[in-house]
Amino acid sequence: MTIAVLSGLVRPLVEPHLPPEIEPRWFTSLEELAALAPDAEIGWFDLDRKEPMVAAVRAAENLRWFNSIYAGLDFLPLDVLAERKVTITNGAGINAITIAEYVVMLMLVHAKGYREVVRAQERHEWLLDSPGKLELAGTRALLLGMGAIGGLVKTRLEAFDVEVVPVRRSASEGALGPDEWRDRLGDFDWLILAVPATPETDGMIGRAELAAMKDSAVLVNIARGAVVDQDALVEALQAKAIGGALLDVTTPEPLPADHALWSLDNAQVTMHLSGRAQSKMFVRSAQRFVENCRRYVAGEPLAPIFDPARGY
Amino acid sequence: MTIAVLSGLVRPLVEPHLPPEIEPRWFTSLEELAALAPDAEIGWFDLDRKEPMVAAVRAAENLRWFNSIYAGLDFLPLDVLAERKVTITNGAGINAITIAEYVVMLMLVHAKGYREVVRAQERHEWLLDSPGKLELAGTRALLLGMGAIGGLVKTRLEAFDVEVVPVRRSASEGALGPDEWRDRLGDFDWLILAVPATPETDGMIGRAELAAMKDSAVLVNIARGAVVDQDALVEALQAKAIGGALLDVTTPEPLPADHALWSLDNAQVTMHLSGRAQSKMFVRSAQRFVENCRRYVAGEPLAPIFDPARGY
Repeated sequence: MTIAVLSGLVRPLVEPHLPPEIEPRWFTSLEELAALAPDAEIGWFDLDRKEPMVAAVRAAENLRWFNSIYAGLDFLPLDVLAERKVTITNGAGINAITIAEYVVMLMLVHAKGYREVVRAQERHEWLLDSPGKLELAGTRALLLGMGAIGGLVKTRLEAFDVEVVPVRRSASEGALGPDEWRDRLGDFDWLILAVPATPETDGMIGRAELAAMKDSAVLVNIARGAVVDQDALVEALQAKAIGGALLDVTTPEPLPADHALWSLDNAQVTMHLSGRAQSKMFVRSAQRFVENCRRYVAGEPLAPIFDPARGY
Repeated sequence: MTIAVLSGLVRPLVEPHLPPEIEPRWFTSLEELAALAPDAEIGWFDLDRKEPMVAAVRAAENLRWFNSIYAGLDFLPLDVLAERKVTITNGAGINAITIAEYVVMLMLVHAKGYREVVRAQERHEWLLDSPGKLELAGTRALLLGMGAIGGLVKTRLEAFDVEVVPVRRSASEGALGPDEWRDRLGDFDWLILAVPATPETDGMIGRAELAAMKDSAVLVNIARGAVVDQDALVEALQAKAIGGALLDVTTPEPLPADHALWSLDNAQVTMHLSGRAQSKMFVRSAQRFVENCRRYVAGEPLAPIFDPARGY
């Protein structure tokens, strides 16, 4: 029998569909996870808290397949998983639709100054003019990261007549190469970060990149806080050197209540909610896990595979 | 010489491009408009206030062509204009892009509960879950009104994988006929009103239509307040008989500060701002007017023509 240690939260979605070769053991507390992890050949250890997940991974010495609902797994001891040759499947694309919808919402809210409209509604005040007067139509967006999320963002923005230029490994028709985009930053109205969290993307947007942006251009970060030099960003926003920042992610998370980003008129902080703004993530993730269980038993390749060396 | 009485606001955009056969007379106050209107063969009388525009139209007995930046002209004495056989050009489509962007923004803000996120930002509070968990993807929208705005709304929503079913004069593939849509109201997650303001659309959505909607369905009104029975709507919202209402238009406008709509959690009131959330309307309208001046002098047909009998 193959022992699978799984969160009790997904039990109703997973249990009826498991192949008989897999024996599930459900945990409903941190203690149960800690006790069960060493026996796991298959592990789906997702928790809201990261530390006990990390501890469970370290303790799971028999693990052969690790699954997660999350796309970014940089918080895990990836070296340990690599050394033990554990196959990792992640949640890449599971909440991409929702995140892509969130990105467009944030851009529209910025363009139309909708936060001011919300405040006016609360005051029962009939505004006579729009606090924001930008149109998405006719603007240009540079898109860093063309994974599942980036692809969905691109098609949605193009329907608004936004010209979306992705950065690809090699420059091609309508795309920029990895060595080209920095020199072209001044051409864009939006800089959208949808890159995976890897050592290479760490601090990818620093003082120089922010300085190269148009003073009306807006940074949209749905990747990881660490992709941006946040101190430099706060300075740029305070100096109005860029038009704004729409930040689903920050450093650290949660952002402390006294952080300068909260109070800036030209920043929106959305608390890493973009992927949570849906109710289908568990269902989609469970369906994918069940299909991977069938493949695991049949000796077929699992998908999508997370490569700990590459970081995504 | 053809005398054109025009708002001083468009002077810098229009004057350099006028054909020599047209003699412009610019008004910069209500008094100047009142004094100049009787001489006008061509009139572009737009003001923020409607009453003096109406008075100017009544006084303009020599008018042959009346132009407006607005799409809906139901506030004008259309019978007088029709009787005098005045050709009317309006702003149909001028701000359609902006309004279509606004519609999608409102739907996304509703889906993700973004007003709550704005309030949390103001409190510097890191929310742990999204106040809204709807995805646009996979939902169905019934679209009443397939003018310039409706068409743009449709293509944008389709990029979000929303199934958009328009109502057309005759039923066709993927559309419903004018006698069919009421029976199908319960099939839709969104009911979008983009119809022109005419006697036939007055009160088009009443108690019966609201009752036929799903209890999660959302009404989006970017047409005119009068298209909806607003008392019935308030009752439906208070009873949570529908999921929400996104109202760019209300009855009356401005909405009085003590009106129930302001305080409903499931209503957004956006103060007829949707068309104002751009800065290109004057430029686009002036370009169109200048082109129509050329056509007028050349004896060519003007466009777009507003038909006072039809009401759009």
